[in-house]
Amino acid sequence: MAIKGISHVGVAVDDLAQAISALAIIFDHPPDKLESVTDQKIKAALFSAGQSQIELLAGTDDDSPISKYISKKGNGIHHLCLIVDNLEEELKRLKVAGIRLIDETPRQGVEGKLIAFIHPKSTAGILIELQQG
Amino acid sequence: MAIKGISHVGVAVDDLAQAISALAIIFDHPPDKLESVTDQKIKAALFSAGQSQIELLAGTDDDSPISKYISKKGNGIHHLCLIVDNLEEELKRLKVAGIRLIDETPRQGVEGKLIAFIHPKSTAGILIELQQG
Repeated sequence: MAIKGISHVGVAVDDLAQAISALAIIFDHPPDKLESVTDQKIKAALFSAGQSQIELLAGTDDDSPISKYISKKGNGIHHLCLIVDNLEEELKRLKVAGIRLIDETPRQGVEGKLIAFIHPKSTAGILIELQQG
Repeated sequence: MAIKGISHVGVAVDDLAQAISALAIIFDHPPDKLESVTDQKIKAALFSAGQSQIELLAGTDDDSPISKYISKKGNGIHHLCLIVDNLEEELKRLKVAGIRLIDETPRQGVEGKLIAFIHPKSTAGILIELQQG
């Protein structure tokens, strides 16, 4: 089994405080974690949902990938992160199978986990992140 | 804990066969299930990911909600379905808290499960489905 589960669903929002208030009502508790990813110019709020998390993402600057996404498409579900056992092996397998990769080798993501993004051209238009986990 | 996990992530696609081929490479196996929801004019392909599923959704007619979504926004992640213990109680709680509901009472979804949709106006712009399960 290549895919073991959903790590998180990333949601792009223009107003993080407002989005946190909305999800805090639905989840009936405040976010489980707040984070900043300074190199991506992103601040994030995470809500746990069983094995997975909902990750609210807001740009801290207009040239953040999240701000650019919102200026084109508006608020919405931005990407889906799937868990694999061995990311390096999966990337090799996908490359051989003709899948277009944004990251051809694993890189360090949030919390030091190994991650890589697959190009939406190879995934029916959705942005998929793989995480070794 | 109001939310127990992610039931599925629904992905709107214009070409179901092409999307199935793409995800079958990433998941390294064919879809776990194919479905038709005739009243919604939708055909679907499901890939399991741990406790959750990725649900590829294509309209079978131009007036299907999925076809309308794609004509406005293109292919992409359409909705997020979260699992709750008691849907009727959750809907009451959310209504009292001022959350705008598309379905104010539970209705029957795929496989006879009780579901209800929350209005994106109350969820930072994302379409959230709740499922009793």
